[in-house]
Amino acid sequence: MKKHNFSAGPCILPQEVMQKAASAVIELDDIGLSLIEISHRSKEFVDIMEQARSLALELLGLKDKGYQALFLHGGASMEFLMVAYNFLEKKAGYLNTGTWSDKAIKEARLFGEVVEVASSKDKNYNFIPKDYKIPGDLDYLHITSNNTIYGTQFKEIPKTDLPLICDMSSDIFSRQLDFSQFDLIYAGAQKNMGPAGVTLVVVKEDALGKVSRKIPSMMDYKVHIDKDSMFNTPPVFPVYTSMLTLQWLKDLGGIAAIKEVNEKKAQLLYSEIDLNPLFKGFAAKEDRSNMNATFTLADEKLKDTFDAMWKEAGINGLNGHRSVGGYRASMYNALSLESVGVLVDIMSDLERKA
Amino acid sequence: MKKHNFSAGPCILPQEVMQKAASAVIELDDIGLSLIEISHRSKEFVDIMEQARSLALELLGLKDKGYQALFLHGGASMEFLMVAYNFLEKKAGYLNTGTWSDKAIKEARLFGEVVEVASSKDKNYNFIPKDYKIPGDLDYLHITSNNTIYGTQFKEIPKTDLPLICDMSSDIFSRQLDFSQFDLIYAGAQKNMGPAGVTLVVVKEDALGKVSRKIPSMMDYKVHIDKDSMFNTPPVFPVYTSMLTLQWLKDLGGIAAIKEVNEKKAQLLYSEIDLNPLFKGFAAKEDRSNMNATFTLADEKLKDTFDAMWKEAGINGLNGHRSVGGYRASMYNALSLESVGVLVDIMSDLERKA
Ligand SMILES: Cc1ncc(COP(=O)(O)O)c(C=O)c1O
Ligand SMILES: Cc1ncc(COP(=O)(O)O)c(C=O)c1O
Ligand SMILES: [Mg+2]
Ligand SMILES: [Mg+2]
Ligand SMILES: [Mg+2]
Ligand SMILES: [Mg+2]
Repeated sequence: MKKHNFSAGPCILPQEVMQKAASAVIELDDIGLSLIEISHRSKEFVDIMEQARSLALELLGLKDKGYQALFLHGGASMEFLMVAYNFLEKKAGYLNTGTWSDKAIKEARLFGEVVEVASSKDKNYNFIPKDYKIPGDLDYLHITSNNTIYGTQFKEIPKTDLPLICDMSSDIFSRQLDFSQFDLIYAGAQKNMGPAGVTLVVVKEDALGKVSRKIPSMMDYKVHIDKDSMFNTPPVFPVYTSMLTLQWLKDLGGIAAIKEVNEKKAQLLYSEIDLNPLFKGFAAKEDRSNMNATFTLADEKLKDTFDAMWKEAGINGLNGHRSVGGYRASMYNALSLESVGVLVDIMSDLERKA
Repeated sequence: MKKHNFSAGPCILPQEVMQKAASAVIELDDIGLSLIEISHRSKEFVDIMEQARSLALELLGLKDKGYQALFLHGGASMEFLMVAYNFLEKKAGYLNTGTWSDKAIKEARLFGEVVEVASSKDKNYNFIPKDYKIPGDLDYLHITSNNTIYGTQFKEIPKTDLPLICDMSSDIFSRQLDFSQFDLIYAGAQKNMGPAGVTLVVVKEDALGKVSRKIPSMMDYKVHIDKDSMFNTPPVFPVYTSMLTLQWLKDLGGIAAIKEVNEKKAQLLYSEIDLNPLFKGFAAKEDRSNMNATFTLADEKLKDTFDAMWKEAGINGLNGHRSVGGYRASMYNALSLESVGVLVDIMSDLERKA
């Protein structure tokens, strides 16, 4: 049976990408060797890395604008400390909009003073704070553009003259923004970009080099830039598969094209959540994420019936995170409008049955 | 044409492992989803991680001996700083036996005093130092069991009462040792264990917790132990493929069985290097690595002929590292005796021709 994969990450990737990635594990481009057994210094892999880096900048509209794209080890959680290592001299500001912001703050506190400029923690992060004053004396302001667990998303990026750093793990490549307003963007691959095990960092080169501490090589963005993102052996398979996914997105028409589909998917699901009396949305309407829709049943007694229905239809990964409960439908780039349709049909069926 | 892959890492893996890994990228165990699109918190992946951790301890004979196996992000280079973060309070000792030891020392120096207990740097690392005194006041002694670039290997592990830490990246799972003499072993996967993008750390639990500094979560071995090696999203594909390789090794008879094959391969190649007047070994005989054999042509004029011959035979990855020049034949676990035979035949052919 065809599966409809609403998993929050790792998550669905384009079918053709998975086919090509599998085939490269057997043999890469007729070279007689597997992708995973060749040297990362081989021409074949150096080209793959270069292409991945170049596609990332191109899709974000940041080519020739002083930015570098890096594919690093560690997951987004590693960036929580690398950001502080490279940018936090005295005091940094963070907007606390979810578990991931909260964790980023915790790691940064080991490196200097951290100001929580605004927080939605007391409302279980169900909205994005809007009225706050950003202190002028911060080394940087850090935001989490999309809050994977709670299903909220910044619709407006805060305006500031400070260096702006963004954890874009769960909505990068999904919508158009002026990406040049950020000094550093990071994103774990395992949502819109590829399999788990690699992290994209896009950094404005002249924002670096402003802290006085000595930085260990693996933590130092400059070291990685100088080594063309190959300071050490990179995670070859995750990089290759990310490159294929970025190529897929480019062929589709880039962010401008996928954004339309993502908006349609989100509209379809949110309008069902709103119109169907059996379901309630979790996040404040104006802050709803187009990537992760969080919702609950109005009547918990329907849980077993609803769960049986969506499982029966081949839907996967719909359970909400334990911090929110209920359901979370993650609708990343590779999820089709058709899959959202299948979910919405089940929600209406439930209404008819109940 | 069948390839004979002597690459130094990433390197050859068992054919059946690559087949199974490729097939899991299409669909994992008939679950209707790809390995790379399921949640790392799914029962399927939690089982894979548990199996990988358990196989690592079992193969090293460290089950129920107070050790934990972790599969971490970052490559072996990340351990250069994690080791220092977790163990270096005041002063550490390192044996400097190659580029990788040298880099480990450089990173550790950011965290405390580092004593080079012995070094073979002035001889371009062509031997393993033997006469030295280990100071008694060190937090730990760090060694690199196999020096990938230079082709040297510790045949005797230094005896010490200090905590002993070993970078075993290029010879783990290749020979029998009393692994319980180490307090921490680390190894980038991309030699004997799997594809690039994951690092095995095997640590004695009661050796941890002795430093006073605050450790960022991603750098803290205790955090990773408490979270069963899933503090954050792990590199799913590299972990899975490593698990398959460890299972392959276990089915083969474990380290005891592979060690025999590895010794045969090394003997075959080194005896050709010694008997054939056209070739010279680089490393001191008593310190020769069974994993990486480094050698040069006695007469550089034969280079083009020799290079054409081995390329013609389907041999890959034989060029030496630029720090040594000449040739390096890496003979990791998955390389067959037959492949070494092909190389040795070419070396004898050259002698007949020349
Ligand atoms: C927004 C956001 N930031 C950070 C993370 C942590 O990512 P990783 O597991 O790669 O460290 C996640 C994981 O889901 C996330 O959604
Ligand atoms: C002995 C040894 N240590 C460390 C490294 C560095 O490993 P990585 O590239 O995974 O950081 C290597 C790489 O070849 C190695 O051979
Ligand atoms: Mg969140
Ligand atoms: Mg409703
Ligand atoms: Mg070396
Ligand atoms: Mg000779």
